[in-house]
Amino acid sequence: MESKNFKYPDTKAYNFVVAELKKRNVDLHALSKIAYHLQKQFLPQLNEQECYEELNSVLHKRELLNNVMVGLELDRLAEENKLKEPLLSIIRNDAGVFGVDESLALQIADIYGTIGVTNFGYLDRVKYGIIKQFDEDPNHVNTFIDDLLGAIVAATCAKVAHKYA
Amino acid sequence: MESKNFKYPDTKAYNFVVAELKKRNVDLHALSKIAYHLQKQFLPQLNEQECYEELNSVLHKRELLNNVMVGLELDRLAEENKLKEPLLSIIRNDAGVFGVDESLALQIADIYGTIGVTNFGYLDRVKYGIIKQFDEDPNHVNTFIDDLLGAIVAATCAKVAHKYA
Amino acid sequence: MESKNFKYPDTKAYNFVVAELKKRNVDLHALSKIAYHLQKQFLPQLNEQECYEELNSVLHKRELLNNVMVGLELDRLAEENKLKEPLLSIIRNDAGVFGVDESLALQIADIYGTIGVTNFGYLDRVKYGIIKQFDEDPNHVNTFIDDLLGAIVAATCAKVAHKYA
Amino acid sequence: MESKNFKYPDTKAYNFVVAELKKRNVDLHALSKIAYHLQKQFLPQLNEQECYEELNSVLHKRELLNNVMVGLELDRLAEENKLKEPLLSIIRNDAGVFGVDESLALQIADIYGTIGVTNFGYLDRVKYGIIKQFDEDPNHVNTFIDDLLGAIVAATCAKVAHKYA
Repeated sequence: MESKNFKYPDTKAYNFVVAELKKRNVDLHALSKIAYHLQKQFLPQLNEQECYEELNSVLHKRELLNNVMVGLELDRLAEENKLKEPLLSIIRNDAGVFGVDESLALQIADIYGTIGVTNFGYLDRVKYGIIKQFDEDPNHVNTFIDDLLGAIVAATCAKVAHKYA
Repeated sequence: MESKNFKYPDTKAYNFVVAELKKRNVDLHALSKIAYHLQKQFLPQLNEQECYEELNSVLHKRELLNNVMVGLELDRLAEENKLKEPLLSIIRNDAGVFGVDESLALQIADIYGTIGVTNFGYLDRVKYGIIKQFDEDPNHVNTFIDDLLGAIVAATCAKVAHKYA
Repeated sequence: MESKNFKYPDTKAYNFVVAELKKRNVDLHALSKIAYHLQKQFLPQLNEQECYEELNSVLHKRELLNNVMVGLELDRLAEENKLKEPLLSIIRNDAGVFGVDESLALQIADIYGTIGVTNFGYLDRVKYGIIKQFDEDPNHVNTFIDDLLGAIVAATCAKVAHKYA
Repeated sequence: MESKNFKYPDTKAYNFVVAELKKRNVDLHALSKIAYHLQKQFLPQLNEQECYEELNSVLHKRELLNNVMVGLELDRLAEENKLKEPLLSIIRNDAGVFGVDESLALQIADIYGTIGVTNFGYLDRVKYGIIKQFDEDPNHVNTFIDDLLGAIVAATCAKVAHKYA
């Protein structure tokens, strides 16, 4: 039942997400560089610092924070074997037909419209840089984090594209 | 990293979902009756038994099973205080701007197209019968289950509507 | 091929939409009143004037304008028999399994997240006031407009809900 | 107002789509080959003929047919200057922030779940073969068709992926 007096904890959610990403060795500058490389061919006036600032702005959106928190927690709970079967095995094996990882990511990518969705789809296949590292790491459960990072980059691309449209 | 040899456990996933719904006192016939009541005005030839059979068929779809398993587990983990803050409080308080509960549900509702999405939106507001009971229960975390049940009913409505179109 | 020098005509698009809605006898105050009635039970501090201002703000979003323009034009072209068969008959008969009307509307409803989507689903079924009049008018093709109006109201509801969250 | 007695013209819709694609020089085998190339790295047992058969099966889905018919008609109407301004210029210039082209395409890509959505996003950026030709053709309005073709391929990829999961 929805509690009417609960106030959404914007700052705590942002701090949690940034701290967890840091713990998992995600460099936000590496992410904003991917956005820069994806968009510079369309936007010659774009620079890396601006992409970093837009990424930081994107990271304050509640819809992003909610989906990232859920995905990071599901990776952690699967890593610690705290989910019930068969969901545990499905997530630990990053089953291709699971789809909830891409679903959470698509909610993020879509915050700034369809440009984010198509960029996410591209990143989901080519898996640049840090996104690739997570996708290929055999030692940890990274089922959600690679998609979430792709979505954060994709949303940044869309925000930048709309700014200059 | 996706494990290439992992086979999706269709039967285990279906059995888990049916068993968990039973544990939480969800009567599948009560759900199919809601679908019947929502669709009979458009489809005079429809009967309750047919809605029950269609609901059972819908419950075998992987996309439904994946989203339901994740939602039920998040309710359980929040109930047992096994999620980190501030996500724990956001889910325990069923915060109106959380949205991940409706997102998982919309993935299910959308399996048979937009008819499912609009029926889900309707149920999300009117919260019939068993869905209302979960929404109003102050003793348990039911943030995901009420939306998931609405989505299962909505997907059943859409499947039935397409069958007779 | 995308023309790099084309600048999106924000003002022209807004003016077109407002003028077309007026031509079809849509009173924007009637729409914002529906949003007010849907949200006041959750937000006691809300007033009608504020809903009208938020609706006007929502009407400036490009994603809304694009989808509304396409939907209004498709209604007009179907009315004037300028679409090819069988699409012409599908739209003229407002076929229940068409779905493109709800799709365009859902893009609008989703601009401010899932709250808009669920409100749209509700309006799609109950079809309040002016939305009902379009849905029941046998003299014109109103396949898209009723859904578009529901979506404009739903997006306004979502914007208001987020403002006070 | 929905006409209760209207029967959805499945065969006419399929025939219209296949005939229009042929008129615009789309070779369905060229499309199914793209699906084959995108999926063979994950599915060594896949062959081209199977992809062609799955593409043909996908082309019978109502949700696909509805969105394809609308997109092809909008390209034609823009080519013939039969849309009102400013929508006419927006479509004729394939404005990057329009988004309705990708929206219709995403409805198609999503028929078989998120795998279709990510493949569509990839194709939207890399624009293989025939898709690239439409995107780069300066003599005709191809705002919708390149996205629709990408979506048909993406849905075929998703159907094939689920079959072998």
